[in-house]
Amino acid sequence: MLSEFDLIKQYFVQNYAADSRIALGIGDDCALINPSPGMQLAISSDMLVSGRHFFPDADPYHLGHKCLAVNLSDLAAMGAKPLAFTLALSLPEANPNWLLPFSKGLLDLAQTHHCRLIGGDTTKGPLNICITIFGELPPGTALRRDAAQVDDDIWVSGTLGDARLALAAYWKELPLSPEDHRQAATRMHTPTPRIELGIALRGIAHAALDISDGLIGDLGHILESSKLGASLFIDRLPAGPVLRQQSLEQRRTFTLAGGDDYELCFTAPVHQREAVIAAGIASNTNVTRIGKIEANQGLRLLDDNHQTIKLSLQAFDHFTSA
Amino acid sequence: MLSEFDLIKQYFVQNYAADSRIALGIGDDCALINPSPGMQLAISSDMLVSGRHFFPDADPYHLGHKCLAVNLSDLAAMGAKPLAFTLALSLPEANPNWLLPFSKGLLDLAQTHHCRLIGGDTTKGPLNICITIFGELPPGTALRRDAAQVDDDIWVSGTLGDARLALAAYWKELPLSPEDHRQAATRMHTPTPRIELGIALRGIAHAALDISDGLIGDLGHILESSKLGASLFIDRLPAGPVLRQQSLEQRRTFTLAGGDDYELCFTAPVHQREAVIAAGIASNTNVTRIGKIEANQGLRLLDDNHQTIKLSLQAFDHFTSA
Repeated sequence: MLSEFDLIKQYFVQNYAADSRIALGIGDDCALINPSPGMQLAISSDMLVSGRHFFPDADPYHLGHKCLAVNLSDLAAMGAKPLAFTLALSLPEANPNWLLPFSKGLLDLAQTHHCRLIGGDTTKGPLNICITIFGELPPGTALRRDAAQVDDDIWVSGTLGDARLALAAYWKELPLSPEDHRQAATRMHTPTPRIELGIALRGIAHAALDISDGLIGDLGHILESSKLGASLFIDRLPAGPVLRQQSLEQRRTFTLAGGDDYELCFTAPVHQREAVIAAGIASNTNVTRIGKIEANQGLRLLDDNHQTIKLSLQAFDHFTSA
Repeated sequence: MLSEFDLIKQYFVQNYAADSRIALGIGDDCALINPSPGMQLAISSDMLVSGRHFFPDADPYHLGHKCLAVNLSDLAAMGAKPLAFTLALSLPEANPNWLLPFSKGLLDLAQTHHCRLIGGDTTKGPLNICITIFGELPPGTALRRDAAQVDDDIWVSGTLGDARLALAAYWKELPLSPEDHRQAATRMHTPTPRIELGIALRGIAHAALDISDGLIGDLGHILESSKLGASLFIDRLPAGPVLRQQSLEQRRTFTLAGGDDYELCFTAPVHQREAVIAAGIASNTNVTRIGKIEANQGLRLLDDNHQTIKLSLQAFDHFTSA
């Protein structure tokens, strides 16, 4: 069987272009980074557990992609530029048929974003993947959750709900043609971190976060941190291409309280509308205006006729959800 | 049941003295750090799995201590000063009787070393604790594994083997009185990271690492990285106070190939002997000279009569060991 050291050397040591900010990578007690002078460091950590965040038989290439994508998405939500990450991996066995595609999915996305694997840990145990990621940004430019202001527009990137729709079909909650299921499932398996948009929104957006547990739950964190309320125009929410063909009820449910979207939800002042649209174009990412921040606390859902809609929805929580 | 957010707020948000280097702690997509100008960042990640690194019924206060201690030990081995850490936690349930002492053990040690919990993740799943830690050091001062030089003395901090002795008694490999077992087990459950010694050795020691998988295996990493060999005076190895009373064979086995020692093994030039001893005194940590780096590759074990000893030992490896 492969030893821990062989495993790391064989699958996880990258040899791409040198980065002067990385003074020492994998192989010592610590990695060493030279932060760019005057820049702030953004740090996030996500743990993905087999059977909870992904199916035990998930395609390992996609899984490698997704594990890093969800962390990159946290950097995007702050407006930070990726720098490096660590990977801690608990594996039931050192199986090359899994490790080879997993590491490739992970490192392909890492290379796309110039984000270097600098260290970590491997151990035997139930499959668990923990990535801690580091990015950089100029001090004072971070898009924080507590920075929304009254009268800000609320925006969302890309489309929502297709990942949740694919999951519903896996769970047999609803029928979906094989072709539709395949298309929706790409959003579930290979989310696209909105790094370029996050960076383009520095100085334009006020508050931002990434949507991982469903729009209303995550938007709720902005409202709570900023001590404000909002109205959401629920029929303006950009449904994914597969979800768009489903019933109104499903569209509303899965755009509002889906999960695994990894789109950015952000607020920006009205006078920045043109700048937000320009940031979307510059980063090749659709942006849609979906609501308004208000002083009146709570979240109001309005339909196209400005009527208040009552829906029974809740965000996904790892300890109170099934 | 506690939600994920309640859980984080209730147990893991610290309120101790502000640190200007921490611009934003727990609660957003990322934490934000302002690295001290001109300093290098040292980063390490360790994952501890229930049933592998600790007993499923391990005392949660000790476990909280140990999880952070093994990460601090990695900083110590580079000569870095602790700054902050993230915690990712997979838990079968949100049980306050476990969370309260676990978080206290963790945060007590964090406070001792002025190392702030700045973020992380919590999820439901098999018990798994992943900490990523950050420290600072002046560029060029890191104690790297590849920096040993011919004729360097080899040194070790503290004592070795009591943690492995306690484990042997748990496993019924050997008998130990309840009092001896209790004393040895403190080394297994609450290791002491040698932070002050690591910092004091900057500019004095050449190579260093922390001993987690047994002295000969870990010293082997220094030899391999530095492309050198060594002679080890095996009867000079500082056995722990309980192990010291056991047979010669057990002393040799558990000092050479124990595990969970979390002492520093380091090399330093002969002319620095006084400085090493002074660093030990200044950091209130015993240091013992145990061998010599040599150009001749391989590791030679010598007894007190300078005779070569053959022992069948191997370091612990998570994938090739049982």
